[in-house]
Amino acid sequence: MALTYELIKECKQTGARLGKIHTKHGSIETPIFMPVGTQATVKTMTPEELKEINAQIILSNTYHLYLRPGHEIIKKAGGLHEFMNWDRPILTDSGGFQVFSLNELRKITEEGVEFRSHLDGSKHFLSPEKAVEIQNTLGSDIIMAFDECAPYPADREYVKNSLERTTRWAKRCKTAHKNTENQSLFGIIQGGMYKDLRQQSAEEIIELDFPGYAIGGLSVGEPKPLMYEILEHTVPLMPKLKPRYLMGVGSPDALIEGAIRGIDMFDCVHGTRIARNGTAMTTYGRVVIKNAKYAEDFTSLDPECDCYTCKNYSRAYIRHLFKANEILGLRLLSYHNLYFLLKLMENIREAIKNDSLLDYKKTFFEKYGL
Amino acid sequence: MALTYELIKECKQTGARLGKIHTKHGSIETPIFMPVGTQATVKTMTPEELKEINAQIILSNTYHLYLRPGHEIIKKAGGLHEFMNWDRPILTDSGGFQVFSLNELRKITEEGVEFRSHLDGSKHFLSPEKAVEIQNTLGSDIIMAFDECAPYPADREYVKNSLERTTRWAKRCKTAHKNTENQSLFGIIQGGMYKDLRQQSAEEIIELDFPGYAIGGLSVGEPKPLMYEILEHTVPLMPKLKPRYLMGVGSPDALIEGAIRGIDMFDCVHGTRIARNGTAMTTYGRVVIKNAKYAEDFTSLDPECDCYTCKNYSRAYIRHLFKANEILGLRLLSYHNLYFLLKLMENIREAIKNDSLLDYKKTFFEKYGL
Repeated sequence: MALTYELIKECKQTGARLGKIHTKHGSIETPIFMPVGTQATVKTMTPEELKEINAQIILSNTYHLYLRPGHEIIKKAGGLHEFMNWDRPILTDSGGFQVFSLNELRKITEEGVEFRSHLDGSKHFLSPEKAVEIQNTLGSDIIMAFDECAPYPADREYVKNSLERTTRWAKRCKTAHKNTENQSLFGIIQGGMYKDLRQQSAEEIIELDFPGYAIGGLSVGEPKPLMYEILEHTVPLMPKLKPRYLMGVGSPDALIEGAIRGIDMFDCVHGTRIARNGTAMTTYGRVVIKNAKYAEDFTSLDPECDCYTCKNYSRAYIRHLFKANEILGLRLLSYHNLYFLLKLMENIREAIKNDSLLDYKKTFFEKYGL
Repeated sequence: MALTYELIKECKQTGARLGKIHTKHGSIETPIFMPVGTQATVKTMTPEELKEINAQIILSNTYHLYLRPGHEIIKKAGGLHEFMNWDRPILTDSGGFQVFSLNELRKITEEGVEFRSHLDGSKHFLSPEKAVEIQNTLGSDIIMAFDECAPYPADREYVKNSLERTTRWAKRCKTAHKNTENQSLFGIIQGGMYKDLRQQSAEEIIELDFPGYAIGGLSVGEPKPLMYEILEHTVPLMPKLKPRYLMGVGSPDALIEGAIRGIDMFDCVHGTRIARNGTAMTTYGRVVIKNAKYAEDFTSLDPECDCYTCKNYSRAYIRHLFKANEILGLRLLSYHNLYFLLKLMENIREAIKNDSLLDYKKTFFEKYGL
């Protein structure tokens, strides 16, 4: 068995739960946030820095690694862990979301998706079998089924078709998966914003018996209350003794709301992306570091944070680095934002332990200005 | 006394010497290479990483810091060390070289240099007094006189005029220097490629009695043998018991040749700049990491290097990072190249200790392919 999920405690106040996922590359405390290393590197960070901030699992992308450097090169390097010098768990997505995002550059058929590379326009084909084969080659601990993620908004007919295709593709992924000993394949529940279609998808995918389940097709442009509504409807349909992963969600409020609704795993590029644009997440809300008001602000980014950035640098210095286009600025904010998100998850876990998650949420939202 | 120089040993084979410079922020073993932190950051690196690779002193730039963020902000931060989180020695240059490099954007008079900012075109004026005042405000351990660096080639008359102005400006710098207790002002010898003018400049500047001396106006486009010839002529004119700093020189061969000719201090952006362009300095010469031949090369950058980069990453991975425009690539190569240069200086010091510098040079040049 490549992966086991241990349910440690259920929150008395909410649907949240405390758990542990055990993999061959170590254990993961849940609920967890997974920093994203799209191209076999979490942008600006070394693996040692990720460990410093207690990253327990990272995510990488099949689509990007397939195109560059190519999964065969990573195989020759000894697999993705070895290639990128990361010995803790890795989850790879299937590339489905990326190829569907290519819009005019892709053509979907029952067999799979023909697409053109965003890098050089070259023609490629991804299918359930191919996506699993690539992920088997990469050697990630958790691999994702090749699914079709409907856009938002989308009409019922479209969403129904794509969830049913997702089920057929999930079956093919399961059949194609060759390394069940070391890698766990997660199924993905689709169904857009239609509760009955979410139910249909959940039933069909869970029927296939995967070691973990993801909810896809959320955080695709819909209002947050709608996302939470769909979560409230979908999560209870999912098995209690398997991990639940909400794909592509990583804003602080959504992490708390997701955990409250029983989600165990999250990932999102948001925190590192806004960091590179000069925005820090802090206890008291966002800080846009280039603002003139920080030019002579010699306090730390976040007065309640004890990360490397906050312990050693002032807002004035980080602002200077951004104004001067210095890479250290990108590093310091990326480091801080990831620390902030991982610390938030630690606080959520602590609050579940103490049955105080709703109180924690209240305090967090008040300070953050939500 | 802000600075003392301790001569530890003279090489029996060459003009090289082993020494120590003692400052209020710690001691520096010489000969030394100083990584350049133009804008109050050594590009891509944290101070902790600089310590890991044994950087003992770094250089920063008056011109850049004056324009951005402004020296008054750095003063309010508690000085440059505090601002950038670096507690070891810092040398700042005077800004002279930068403003002269502005060409059409500057006008030189006896009083000083009027120039326009390369950032926003705003008008500014730097004089010997102003350059010293800014450096006094920054609080760097070693500050440099405001000099006029002649271009190459330049006719005798031009060079003679600029060296004589450099002497007059050096006197004004000395008078202006307000913080002799904590900061040491170095004089700069000019004179271009004219030996008699180098002699005149050396005599005039040394007459003013500075705690250290630099040789400016070399590595400005002249052939290396000519630079070495001027060094051989100039260094013997300099006091034995004070540090000697060759400005703007940092290629591996020139570091060895400079040390052989009695130089104690070097700085150059070369190593970090080529790193950001994807070029590594290795024991066996340069590695241009984007070359296709490294796509499946799973060996380390430099088989004889034990730096963080070489211990943990393959050429194939670093090449991937560069092809994918990932910041970690810039970090790993910058780290390696600085480590390489600092290790080279350590080897030079070791060779001086053992009177084997010429043998070391021979082996190094052979392996490097020089």
